[in-house]
Amino acid sequence: MEGNVMEMDNALRAQVLIHALPFIRKYTDKVVVVKYGGNAMINEELKKAVMSDVVLLSLVGIRVVLVHGGGPEISDTLKKMQIPSRFEGGLRVTDRETMGVVQMVLAGKVNKDLVNLLQCQGGRAMGLSGIDGRMITVRRLDEVHGYVGEITRVDTSVITDALDAGYIPVISTVGCDEEGNVYNINADTAAARIAGCLKAESFLSMTDICGLMRDPSDPSTLIPQVYVSDIPQLIADGIITGGMIPKIECCQEAIRRGVKRVFIVDGRVPHSLLIELFTDEGIGTMFL
Amino acid sequence: MEGNVMEMDNALRAQVLIHALPFIRKYTDKVVVVKYGGNAMINEELKKAVMSDVVLLSLVGIRVVLVHGGGPEISDTLKKMQIPSRFEGGLRVTDRETMGVVQMVLAGKVNKDLVNLLQCQGGRAMGLSGIDGRMITVRRLDEVHGYVGEITRVDTSVITDALDAGYIPVISTVGCDEEGNVYNINADTAAARIAGCLKAESFLSMTDICGLMRDPSDPSTLIPQVYVSDIPQLIADGIITGGMIPKIECCQEAIRRGVKRVFIVDGRVPHSLLIELFTDEGIGTMFL
Amino acid sequence: MEGNVMEMDNALRAQVLIHALPFIRKYTDKVVVVKYGGNAMINEELKKAVMSDVVLLSLVGIRVVLVHGGGPEISDTLKKMQIPSRFEGGLRVTDRETMGVVQMVLAGKVNKDLVNLLQCQGGRAMGLSGIDGRMITVRRLDEVHGYVGEITRVDTSVITDALDAGYIPVISTVGCDEEGNVYNINADTAAARIAGCLKAESFLSMTDICGLMRDPSDPSTLIPQVYVSDIPQLIADGIITGGMIPKIECCQEAIRRGVKRVFIVDGRVPHSLLIELFTDEGIGTMFL
Amino acid sequence: MEGNVMEMDNALRAQVLIHALPFIRKYTDKVVVVKYGGNAMINEELKKAVMSDVVLLSLVGIRVVLVHGGGPEISDTLKKMQIPSRFEGGLRVTDRETMGVVQMVLAGKVNKDLVNLLQCQGGRAMGLSGIDGRMITVRRLDEVHGYVGEITRVDTSVITDALDAGYIPVISTVGCDEEGNVYNINADTAAARIAGCLKAESFLSMTDICGLMRDPSDPSTLIPQVYVSDIPQLIADGIITGGMIPKIECCQEAIRRGVKRVFIVDGRVPHSLLIELFTDEGIGTMFL
Amino acid sequence: MEGNVMEMDNALRAQVLIHALPFIRKYTDKVVVVKYGGNAMINEELKKAVMSDVVLLSLVGIRVVLVHGGGPEISDTLKKMQIPSRFEGGLRVTDRETMGVVQMVLAGKVNKDLVNLLQCQGGRAMGLSGIDGRMITVRRLDEVHGYVGEITRVDTSVITDALDAGYIPVISTVGCDEEGNVYNINADTAAARIAGCLKAESFLSMTDICGLMRDPSDPSTLIPQVYVSDIPQLIADGIITGGMIPKIECCQEAIRRGVKRVFIVDGRVPHSLLIELFTDEGIGTMFL
Amino acid sequence: MEGNVMEMDNALRAQVLIHALPFIRKYTDKVVVVKYGGNAMINEELKKAVMSDVVLLSLVGIRVVLVHGGGPEISDTLKKMQIPSRFEGGLRVTDRETMGVVQMVLAGKVNKDLVNLLQCQGGRAMGLSGIDGRMITVRRLDEVHGYVGEITRVDTSVITDALDAGYIPVISTVGCDEEGNVYNINADTAAARIAGCLKAESFLSMTDICGLMRDPSDPSTLIPQVYVSDIPQLIADGIITGGMIPKIECCQEAIRRGVKRVFIVDGRVPHSLLIELFTDEGIGTMFL
Repeated sequence: MEGNVMEMDNALRAQVLIHALPFIRKYTDKVVVVKYGGNAMINEELKKAVMSDVVLLSLVGIRVVLVHGGGPEISDTLKKMQIPSRFEGGLRVTDRETMGVVQMVLAGKVNKDLVNLLQCQGGRAMGLSGIDGRMITVRRLDEVHGYVGEITRVDTSVITDALDAGYIPVISTVGCDEEGNVYNINADTAAARIAGCLKAESFLSMTDICGLMRDPSDPSTLIPQVYVSDIPQLIADGIITGGMIPKIECCQEAIRRGVKRVFIVDGRVPHSLLIELFTDEGIGTMFL
Repeated sequence: MEGNVMEMDNALRAQVLIHALPFIRKYTDKVVVVKYGGNAMINEELKKAVMSDVVLLSLVGIRVVLVHGGGPEISDTLKKMQIPSRFEGGLRVTDRETMGVVQMVLAGKVNKDLVNLLQCQGGRAMGLSGIDGRMITVRRLDEVHGYVGEITRVDTSVITDALDAGYIPVISTVGCDEEGNVYNINADTAAARIAGCLKAESFLSMTDICGLMRDPSDPSTLIPQVYVSDIPQLIADGIITGGMIPKIECCQEAIRRGVKRVFIVDGRVPHSLLIELFTDEGIGTMFL
Repeated sequence: MEGNVMEMDNALRAQVLIHALPFIRKYTDKVVVVKYGGNAMINEELKKAVMSDVVLLSLVGIRVVLVHGGGPEISDTLKKMQIPSRFEGGLRVTDRETMGVVQMVLAGKVNKDLVNLLQCQGGRAMGLSGIDGRMITVRRLDEVHGYVGEITRVDTSVITDALDAGYIPVISTVGCDEEGNVYNINADTAAARIAGCLKAESFLSMTDICGLMRDPSDPSTLIPQVYVSDIPQLIADGIITGGMIPKIECCQEAIRRGVKRVFIVDGRVPHSLLIELFTDEGIGTMFL
Repeated sequence: MEGNVMEMDNALRAQVLIHALPFIRKYTDKVVVVKYGGNAMINEELKKAVMSDVVLLSLVGIRVVLVHGGGPEISDTLKKMQIPSRFEGGLRVTDRETMGVVQMVLAGKVNKDLVNLLQCQGGRAMGLSGIDGRMITVRRLDEVHGYVGEITRVDTSVITDALDAGYIPVISTVGCDEEGNVYNINADTAAARIAGCLKAESFLSMTDICGLMRDPSDPSTLIPQVYVSDIPQLIADGIITGGMIPKIECCQEAIRRGVKRVFIVDGRVPHSLLIELFTDEGIGTMFL
Repeated sequence: MEGNVMEMDNALRAQVLIHALPFIRKYTDKVVVVKYGGNAMINEELKKAVMSDVVLLSLVGIRVVLVHGGGPEISDTLKKMQIPSRFEGGLRVTDRETMGVVQMVLAGKVNKDLVNLLQCQGGRAMGLSGIDGRMITVRRLDEVHGYVGEITRVDTSVITDALDAGYIPVISTVGCDEEGNVYNINADTAAARIAGCLKAESFLSMTDICGLMRDPSDPSTLIPQVYVSDIPQLIADGIITGGMIPKIECCQEAIRRGVKRVFIVDGRVPHSLLIELFTDEGIGTMFL
Repeated sequence: MEGNVMEMDNALRAQVLIHALPFIRKYTDKVVVVKYGGNAMINEELKKAVMSDVVLLSLVGIRVVLVHGGGPEISDTLKKMQIPSRFEGGLRVTDRETMGVVQMVLAGKVNKDLVNLLQCQGGRAMGLSGIDGRMITVRRLDEVHGYVGEITRVDTSVITDALDAGYIPVISTVGCDEEGNVYNINADTAAARIAGCLKAESFLSMTDICGLMRDPSDPSTLIPQVYVSDIPQLIADGIITGGMIPKIECCQEAIRRGVKRVFIVDGRVPHSLLIELFTDEGIGTMFL
C-alpha cells in the first residue's frame, strides 16, 4: 500500500506508531552516529527529511550524533574566491589558504545551517567542530596533501557533554595537530572513528547508492547483511570497488572499535534513517 | 485512506512517524494522567491497544500515569463469593467484608494484570494503590455507603518517585482514613484529583461514548471543545445528563486544580489515546 | 528481670536504648530481608509486634525488605469461592483460576494489609509483587503443579529503587514467565533468593518453632549456631526433618548466594526480630 | 519498676525499643542542638552517658550538634600557668594572654576530648570552633571584659557541611572579630544562637538543676512547661533568679529565632537527653 | 618600575601573584563577559595576550564568556568573493548572499580560530554562535539593512551548559528569527545583552581608545568612573561622541539589565583585561 | 631585576601572572600537601607570606592541605606550666600530662591560629586534628617514649570531605590508638603519610635550609634533583646527615606511597611555596 499521509485515517496512523514501538525501545538511550553526506545533503527536500528523522530520533530518547562533510560547498566557495582546487588520489591538496576556506565553510556554513534546520524542526542542536574542546587531534597525513590530517586521538567529552545537556551534536570534521594547525579530515573516517570512540549502538553512513549490490546496476541484487570477515573476498570479487572501498573500510573500522551495528543507507530515499532503524526489513546493507 | 499497516510501504510509515513529531515534542517530559475504564477495560483487543499506547507514550518520554477502577471484576468476584451487591444513588454500599474484596480485586487482580500487560508490551510498570506510601487519605463519605471514601489529601510523592525511577505508575483507587481503615473511592474522582495534584499537562478520561454530543444518538453532533464556564448551561440544556454529570464534574475539577487540558476519549476506538494526543483533530471532547 | 515497660523508670529505658547502640551501628545502611509467615502472620498481636519491629529497624537506618506468603488466606478465599484446593507433594496444584485467586489474595489483600499496618505504625511502605518492574521471572516447575513457578531470574532494581526512595518494600511472591503468565512461588525460596541477590547483611526467616533443636520437644536443646557444611549430617541424623528441610535448604541457598548471616527466628515470640538483631544472645538458630 | 538492664529479659528490652519508636520518628532528620556543660561535663560516668546518648541520637538519624563551654578546665589551666583569673559581673576579664589559654583549652583540649569520647562510643565526630569556616563573628562586648565577644553573625555552613558529610559537629565557643582577633563567648548564648540559625527542632540546655522549680529546694515543684510570654512574670516573682536568668533568656532567644522546642535538662541524671527526647513525660522544663 | 618579566627575580614574581589575591577572590565563580574587538583582534601579539588573559581568568575560577565580532575579516572575504560591501548609517546592508558570508566568517573562521588559540594557551573552549541552542532570537531591524537583526530574546542555557561543563564559551553574534532566517547582529549590543541575561559580575568592552576622555587627544583626561545617570550630560557636552555613543549605550543597557560593573578597556594595551580586573587602579573607564 | 611590587607597572604585573599560567594549569584540581614548620612558623612576616601562598594556591583551584607541628609552642607552654621536658633519641618523652598539653597546644592553639590567619588572608579553612573523624590511628612507638605514636592507619575521608566542601584543611598531628588514648606523632612522618594516602600531586616539606647541599655551608652546592635510589649513597657519603636523615626518609616514603613530586623547600625565603610551584627553576631540592 502506498499513499499520502494526509489522507490516512487516524487509526492507521496510530497503528504505524505502535508498530515502531519495539524499534524505539531497542534504541532508547543508545548512541546512534549518522554520517550525513551525498545527495541527501544537496537536495532541499531530502535535507529536510533527514533533519526530521534526526529530530524524531532525538525526541524518542536516542542520543543522535550528526557528522557531516561538505565537499560541494567547499569547491563552490573556493571557486568564488578564485582559489584553484587540486586533487591527488581522490584527496584535496590543501594549502593553508584552502584550509582556511575549508574550515570556514564546514564549521561556519554547513554546520550552522544544519543546526538551524534541526532547530526549525523542533530539535535542540549544538554545532561543534573537531577543534572545539580539542575533540579531534591529527597529524599530517603525508607530504603531498598539505593540511590533510590523519586522526591520532578523539576526545569525545565535548560530544557527551552536549548529549548529556540534551543537545544533538552536529560535528564538522576539521581537527588540530599538537601545535594548533588546523587540518581537513575525511568525514567518513572521522564519523566512523567518533562512532567507535562513543561505543555507539549504530553507525549509519548515508551514501548515494541503495547499499552493497552484487550487480551495481540492479537494485534487486542488494546484499542486506555482510560479515566483516567476508569483506576481503567481496573486494577480491570486484563487488566492492572504487569509491566504495574506503567507505566500507570505515564501516569495518567502526565495528572493530566496538560499534554494534553499522549500516550503509541510501540517502536518496526520503526518511531512509527512520526506515532503516524503525522497520523490520531496513533498506540498506548492514555490517556485522 | 484506510488500510492495514502491514501492507503499508516503509516511506509512508516514516511519514506517519514524522507527522507525530510536533505532538511528541509538545508532551515530552510532561505528565499525562489516563483514567482507564469502561469497554476498553473489558474487551481484550482494546485492552492490548490501550497498553501499547501507554507504552509508546512512555517510550517517547511522556510521564504517563494510569489510574483504573474495576467495577465489573468486583461484582464478578463478589458474586462468586456469594456476597450480595447493593447500590444506593449509583454507589456501592460497602461493608467491611465487601471492602476486603474490593481491595483484593482492584489492587491484586486488575492492577497487577495491567502491570503485566504493560510489561508484555515492553513497558516498565509499577502497580500501586492509594494505600502505598499513604498516597490517598480519605474520610467516610456518608453513613449510608459504609466504606466509601471522600478524598481529603493526596500525597503524590510515591507517584513521582515511581516516575523518576522510570516506571509507569498504575494506580488502583482505594485509600485509607487516619486510622488505617480502607475505603473504596470513585476512580474518576481519584484520577482527576491525582491529575490536579500532579499539575498534569493532560488528563484523559476513557469512556464508552465518543465524547460530548448535542444529540447522544448522533456522533456527528460531537462537541469538540467545551469551556468549563459553559458546563452549567450544558447541564441545564440536558446535553450533559445522567452518568455523564459526575464524569464531567471530575473534568471540571481537574482543570480547576491546574491540569492544562482535559479530554473525554472514546475507549471503544482502538488507539484512541494516541489519536487524541498525537493528531491534529483528536476524536473526543476537550475541556478548557 | 521481667516486667512491664509502662512501669519501668525512664533511666532504665534509656539504658536499654543505649545497650542497643552497638547492634544498631552494625546494621545501619545494611539490607535485612525478613521472610514473614506462620503464626506471626495470623495472630493480630504478633502481627502488630512484627510491624513495629520492622518500622523500628527502618527508622534506625536499616534497609528492611519484607517478603510474605499467605497460605491460610488463599485457602480461605478459595473456599469462599468454592474452588477446591488440591496439594501434591506439599505444593498446591494451581490451575489458571486458582492462580487468579492466589495473585489477588497475595498482591491485593495480604500485601496491602501489611503496607497499611506498617504505615499505621509510622513506617513508609510500598507494596510490590514479583510482577512489578519484572522483579521475578520464572519457568513452570513441572507438569503436575500447573502455575507453580521456579525462579530463573530476579531483577532487584525495583526493590532498590523503593529502598533508595525511603520505602519499606513489602513483596508478595508471584512472578511471570517470559510470556507473561503468572505463577505462584514458594515464599521461602523467593525470600532467600531475593536476599541473595541483594547481598543482604542478614536474612531472617520467621517460623513457628524456636529454632533448630536436637530434640524438637525440648527447647533447651536449641542449636544456636549451625555451619552450612554440617547440614547434610543434621539431615542424616534426623535432626532436620520434614517441613524443616526445604526451609533450611533456603537458608543454605541464601548463604551460598552471599548473605552474611541467616537466622531462623521464632515468630511466636513477640518482637523476636528485635531480640535476634539487637541483643547479644539472640533467640533462634544462626546459619554460617 | 527500677533495676539493672543486664538482668532484664529480651522481651522487655524489645518493648522499650518499640516504645521509643514514635519519638525517634518525630526527630529523624531534624536538627537537635545540645548545650553541654555543668556536672555532666565533670563527672566521668555522666560524661560517658551523655556521649552514648549523643551517639544513639545520631545513629537513629537525628542531626545532633554538640556545643560546649569549659569553665573549670580553663580556670585549672590558668592556675597551672600562674595567670590570675578575675571576674566582673560574672564574666571572666579576658586579656590577650588569658584568651590564648581559653582558646587552647576549649578548642584543643575539651573539644578534642569530646570528639574522642564520641568516637569511642561508635560515633563519627568532627571538632570545630567558632573560628573554623568563620562560623562565629563577634564584636567586643564592652571595654571592661577585654576579649569577651558579642555575636554579630553566625555562618552555619561549616556546621551543615559537617552534618551532611555524616559527622556529629562538636563546637567550642570562641569566635573572631572582623580583624581576626579571637574572643571568648558565653557558651549558652552561642549555643542558643546556633540553634536559632539552624532552625533546630530542639535545643537542650544541660544544667545542674532538675528544671525550673517554684521552690528550688523542692524538686516536686518542677514546672514542666513554661510559655515564653510568662518568663517576665516568673522573674518578677523571683522564681527565675540569679544565674538562671541569662540561661533562660538564651532559651527565650532560641525560640524567638525559630527553634521549635527548648528544654532545660538535668545534667546530673544519667541519660537525661534520651529521657527528655524519647519518653512521654520528659524530666526537665520545656519552653514554648 | 618597568622591566622584563624574564629578568625579574622569583621573590618579586611571587609578590605580584600574592598582590592579585584579593582581586582573584572577588571574581572567583562569577561570570565575566568580554566583548573582544578592534585592534586587539587584528594584531597577532595583542591577540595572544588577550587569549592568555582569558585562559588565566578561567583557570583562577572565573566563568569567562568571550563574545566577538569580525568586521575586517568579513569585508576581506566579501572582497575576495567579489561581493560589494555597502553601509547605511554605519551598518552593513546585508542581503542573503552577504549574510551567508557573514555567518561563515564569524562562526567558521573567527570563532574557531579563537577557540584554537585559547586551547593552544591551555584553555578548554567551545565555539558557539547565536544559532546554537537557539541562543539569540531576532527580528529584522528595519527594511533598509536586510538581514540585520534586533535581538528579541536571549536563551543563555547553551552558554551556562558550556560554563558548567568547564568550557570557555566563545560566541559569534549571528542569530535567527522565528522562521530560521539568519541575521547579523551588532556585536557590542549582543555582548551587552548576553552579559545582562547572565547577570554577569562584570562586562568588559575592548575598544581602541584608552577609555572615556574629557579631551580625546589627551589620555591624561581619562575619566576613570562614570555614573550611568551622567551619560546624557556627557553626550550633551560632546564628551561622548560619534561611534562611542552606541558603545556607551550598550554599557548603560548592560548595567540596566543587572551587570554589576561595566568597563571600557583599551584593547591596544597588552593584558589590559588582567590589569583592569586584577589591579587597584585599572586603566579604562568604569560605569556604575 | 629586583624591586618592590608597589613600584612595578601594571603591564609587568600582568606579565607575571601570565607567566604563572602553565604552572597553575599543571596543579589545578590536584592535591598538594604542605608540611609547615621551622622558621616559617615562628617569624610573623614569614608566617603571613606562607598563609598568602596557601590561600592563593587554593583560589587558583589547587586542593591544598596544610599539616603542622608545633615544637617550640609546646615547650613554651610546658615551661609555663612547670612540666619538665625530656628527650630521648631526639623524641620527646611524653607522659599523660605532657600529652594533654601537646594536644591542647597543637589542636587548640597552633591549629586555630593558622585557620584564623588563612581566613584573614581570604581563605576558607577548617582546623582538624588526627582525632577528628578518626583520621589517624596509631600504636605506641616503644616503651621508652610514652605517648609517642606510630601510625597504623590513615583515614583520609575527613580531609577529602573538607576539600570537597571547599575548605583548606589544616591538620595537627595527634592521633588515637584503638582504645582512644591520644598520642603525639612526628609531623614530618604524618604529613608524608597523609600525602601518600591522598595520592597527592606534590608534597612540600618546609625546613630551615635551602635544600640538600653537597657542602651545607655553601648554598651554591644545592642539589636541585635527587633520585630516591641515590639516597642511600648520599647518606653513606655524609651529604645527608643528622636531622636531615628522618626528613628525607619521609620524602622517600611519600614517593613510595604514590606522591608524584616531593620537595624540600626553604621556609626562610618569603613565598618559597609559590616560587617552588609556580616558577621554572624552583629553589629547593626535588625528589623523584
